[in-house]
Amino acid sequence: MLQRPVPWPNGAKVACAITLDMDADSLVHIHHGAGAGDKLSATSMLRYGPEVAIPRILDTYRRFGLTQSFFMPAWCVENHPKAVEAIVKDGHEIGHHGYIHEAPNSLSAAQEHDWMCRSIEIIERHTGQRPRGNRSPLYHMSSKTPGFLAQEGFVYDSSLMGDEVPYVLETGKGRIMELPVSWATDDWPPYVHAPDLDYMFAVQAPERAMEVFMAEFEALRACPGGLWVGVWHPFVSGRLSRWQRVEKMIEYMLNTGDVWFATLEEIAAHVAMVEKSGEYAPRVDHLPYHAENQVPAELQGKV
Amino acid sequence: MLQRPVPWPNGAKVACAITLDMDADSLVHIHHGAGAGDKLSATSMLRYGPEVAIPRILDTYRRFGLTQSFFMPAWCVENHPKAVEAIVKDGHEIGHHGYIHEAPNSLSAAQEHDWMCRSIEIIERHTGQRPRGNRSPLYHMSSKTPGFLAQEGFVYDSSLMGDEVPYVLETGKGRIMELPVSWATDDWPPYVHAPDLDYMFAVQAPERAMEVFMAEFEALRACPGGLWVGVWHPFVSGRLSRWQRVEKMIEYMLNTGDVWFATLEEIAAHVAMVEKSGEYAPRVDHLPYHAENQVPAELQGKV
Amino acid sequence: MLQRPVPWPNGAKVACAITLDMDADSLVHIHHGAGAGDKLSATSMLRYGPEVAIPRILDTYRRFGLTQSFFMPAWCVENHPKAVEAIVKDGHEIGHHGYIHEAPNSLSAAQEHDWMCRSIEIIERHTGQRPRGNRSPLYHMSSKTPGFLAQEGFVYDSSLMGDEVPYVLETGKGRIMELPVSWATDDWPPYVHAPDLDYMFAVQAPERAMEVFMAEFEALRACPGGLWVGVWHPFVSGRLSRWQRVEKMIEYMLNTGDVWFATLEEIAAHVAMVEKSGEYAPRVDHLPYHAENQVPAELQGKV
Amino acid sequence: MLQRPVPWPNGAKVACAITLDMDADSLVHIHHGAGAGDKLSATSMLRYGPEVAIPRILDTYRRFGLTQSFFMPAWCVENHPKAVEAIVKDGHEIGHHGYIHEAPNSLSAAQEHDWMCRSIEIIERHTGQRPRGNRSPLYHMSSKTPGFLAQEGFVYDSSLMGDEVPYVLETGKGRIMELPVSWATDDWPPYVHAPDLDYMFAVQAPERAMEVFMAEFEALRACPGGLWVGVWHPFVSGRLSRWQRVEKMIEYMLNTGDVWFATLEEIAAHVAMVEKSGEYAPRVDHLPYHAENQVPAELQGKV
Repeated sequence: MLQRPVPWPNGAKVACAITLDMDADSLVHIHHGAGAGDKLSATSMLRYGPEVAIPRILDTYRRFGLTQSFFMPAWCVENHPKAVEAIVKDGHEIGHHGYIHEAPNSLSAAQEHDWMCRSIEIIERHTGQRPRGNRSPLYHMSSKTPGFLAQEGFVYDSSLMGDEVPYVLETGKGRIMELPVSWATDDWPPYVHAPDLDYMFAVQAPERAMEVFMAEFEALRACPGGLWVGVWHPFVSGRLSRWQRVEKMIEYMLNTGDVWFATLEEIAAHVAMVEKSGEYAPRVDHLPYHAENQVPAELQGKV
Repeated sequence: MLQRPVPWPNGAKVACAITLDMDADSLVHIHHGAGAGDKLSATSMLRYGPEVAIPRILDTYRRFGLTQSFFMPAWCVENHPKAVEAIVKDGHEIGHHGYIHEAPNSLSAAQEHDWMCRSIEIIERHTGQRPRGNRSPLYHMSSKTPGFLAQEGFVYDSSLMGDEVPYVLETGKGRIMELPVSWATDDWPPYVHAPDLDYMFAVQAPERAMEVFMAEFEALRACPGGLWVGVWHPFVSGRLSRWQRVEKMIEYMLNTGDVWFATLEEIAAHVAMVEKSGEYAPRVDHLPYHAENQVPAELQGKV
Repeated sequence: MLQRPVPWPNGAKVACAITLDMDADSLVHIHHGAGAGDKLSATSMLRYGPEVAIPRILDTYRRFGLTQSFFMPAWCVENHPKAVEAIVKDGHEIGHHGYIHEAPNSLSAAQEHDWMCRSIEIIERHTGQRPRGNRSPLYHMSSKTPGFLAQEGFVYDSSLMGDEVPYVLETGKGRIMELPVSWATDDWPPYVHAPDLDYMFAVQAPERAMEVFMAEFEALRACPGGLWVGVWHPFVSGRLSRWQRVEKMIEYMLNTGDVWFATLEEIAAHVAMVEKSGEYAPRVDHLPYHAENQVPAELQGKV
Repeated sequence: MLQRPVPWPNGAKVACAITLDMDADSLVHIHHGAGAGDKLSATSMLRYGPEVAIPRILDTYRRFGLTQSFFMPAWCVENHPKAVEAIVKDGHEIGHHGYIHEAPNSLSAAQEHDWMCRSIEIIERHTGQRPRGNRSPLYHMSSKTPGFLAQEGFVYDSSLMGDEVPYVLETGKGRIMELPVSWATDDWPPYVHAPDLDYMFAVQAPERAMEVFMAEFEALRACPGGLWVGVWHPFVSGRLSRWQRVEKMIEYMLNTGDVWFATLEEIAAHVAMVEKSGEYAPRVDHLPYHAENQVPAELQGKV
């Protein structure tokens, strides 16, 4: 059922990556600007991420011997240095996630590029390495983002939803490996209830949320060659009740003997390698998909 | 419990049709117009339909020996020719679904008719056949749509929700067979989480979504003579985890020995045949239901 | 756990009433006024009520030997005479539900009273009886409604949520028996997905919706003396899959031997009788609860 | 998995507090001001709290020998004296919850302080004690709230979400113990459907709501030293079907032998005691977290 199954290392059936977007209180700032200080409860909920969840998560990863990917706004890198140091010290990957969780597709091209460069510089300064991967905040990738990523030497992006296997974005300025995600493995819909962030769902029990995430996993396991990416958040999935359940999930996944847990950087490198060796031919999407506004004048806004 | 059970072929208890509305990226265009290019993640999620899901779905249909109905905006017919060719080649039906998923009831009569004609022409040019059926985008059928459908030689519509058996719309310009649908068998509520399309629900596991779809099926099976229509979308139900579950559903349905899987065109033809033979007298609705505004001036807007 | 359990007839533990609000297409008219004609799909979904569901529901009631209460806007009484006749012929109760589902609390006092009188007259003309009970559309009872109900000779209202047993509203113009309801036994949250009515929830399977309704029932059964009122709608709960489940529910409830199924009119009469005989002293609420705006000027709107 | 487990009394693994925010009809007043009188159904739903639920809840607590914490707007203290007297008579704690459920972070500093003082005075006058604890209405704590709480001699706050154990807020004007909460143990998401309060979710069955609350409890039980706080409402969780389930929950929790049920005041006192004795060193957060607007001018509002 997969058109282009990837030959994963050691015959693994599924490549698995838990990616953690450590947005922390950047979210309350970008939502409320000067009013953020008066959103103390939302702030506390978000700061739970670097303060409480990150140590817990790192401890789990150490026990399982996993290295994984984290994405974070550069503002968070500057404002939560303790969490960042701990993540880097354990050898995890830190990717680009905007400056303060702004939406790239609400910026001008010049602004987007400028803030991308500033954020790269901040990450490099604090972690010793330029980011190799990008996740656009709230998946709000602009039409310019892929080109800028290629231009700035990024290896991969993980913000699109176009497949269950990696594919290539040919941007005109170079190519970027896309490691696609899905709302079905994002932890906001099942867990986040945050009036101050304009996002309210009924909070689900960990078992119910996990049903959705695991349905994706089992489907991929039954159909070797695909990629499972959890798009989670320390303040959300790192909560005690949920993270205990995640530990069980990791244990279960590892016990299947069918998975390759890796950072997105490692996954992108593997796909590049099997492509180079001729073992694998990824799908290539040429951007942009369409050159101009596709809606006839008469039908504009007739939604 | 059904007032007018249809005598289905070979004593089948339920006529079943999985209809797939291949909206693809038309949705991001109609929602955002000139800004669609900057919604790259939503675009990728939607293009998953023709790129990834359609080959998977067609493969399943071939294995089960099914031919089914697809509806698609004419813009999609033009922009996703590979998917369209594959669908046509396998003998499936392609129905009318607007030009670029615009809402017919937000257009003037002249505009609606004009775009219907253009879309018919595009479908005919690419598939070799005029469409016989209509599904109005987002079910946004206008008061004029049924008349235009009759005028343009359509055989059936599948956008209304007035019954669990087919019925007839007497439009003044001719009659149209209505093959009714329901939100209970639509895949958006259980699965779609798309901030860029202003539609966000908690994503459900395939098993939970299927509970709702199958409750409809079992109810009809217990009460022979009705019609079960899945209103699904390649980018939604065609996702790996969900389509694997759909395959199990098809297998289960076929194994009951109680179902007739058919295109909506075949179902409409069958009902017309049993009506002509006198075996069946469908309900006939005369349109419009009401001649004018029903709300007294004083009560306007007092909702 | 109930402060004032009612002594129900024959030692029943729970008084049960399925009330059906047959709003039909009045909803699309009050929501869209002159634009209602262009909401053909929503109209068809709503007309399913009188056209398809009412005959099915009445058939069930006949088989179980039940008479129950229906509320409907006077406009529906005029526009769906066949459904109304069938309901009346079987001896069910028809209560007041506005003229065309307008919100009483968005009208002036004079308007509210005027339309109440017109609606009473229409109901009386078509059913042979003035309505004895009221349910305010969308529970939008105004501060004037209880007084008008008393003035017009109504016996009971069923729009408030203040208890699990009947209570009395002392309105200043006379008293009204309140037979309270709850969103927990309303069928909109679990089932209604209607973009044209600004109401969208994930559609639930009948079994899941019933969990909520039955949790209320079992709680009352464990605590004799309370009232269970389903606030359902023919186009919603009358759908085949759901109504089959309702039939099982009725069968189950009857088989407990613990319930008294009755119309709200009968329930109100019983409470009045046991009050008169001195067996029961209902809670009495004196309206209005507060004489004026309770929010200090400085805090207005600081929500 | 907890960084700073608290040594609870008698080796208890979890400190448990059911806190009840008795907002009653204050909510309809703050939402609608002069229009509140015309929201009679919402009012009745809310008044169910003091009228029906409080006696039921107090009865349960008496049977289990529990004393617990209640928070309520001062307006409710004045307007529901019978409920307040009963709560006080049984020895429960009454905490500060605004004057009429206004959002502190929508007031000026002077207004916030002024209404806090007035509310303290009202609570003291009616209950004989100044409140020792605070829960900001809808968790809408402002940047000034913690300082005002310290200034007015409060011992603890319970409006933030930054941990699963108590922590200290160093406000500049003194310290406040924070006893953190979570939306995962709040009863609004699973139960409240109130169009008049702009809050609508599908109403869940008590068993499903309890899954979420109990997942939090079991996680804490597996990881001794944490705090479980139910943030519930008499009109919501005090409903018969839900409160019966709460009774089972209390019984279950007590039977584990692992819990210490206490008021928040007692919990705060215990933490202060073990801190003083040197057995425990709580996390200390210095407020404010950030001195000024964190979003660069160019990125303001680019969410």
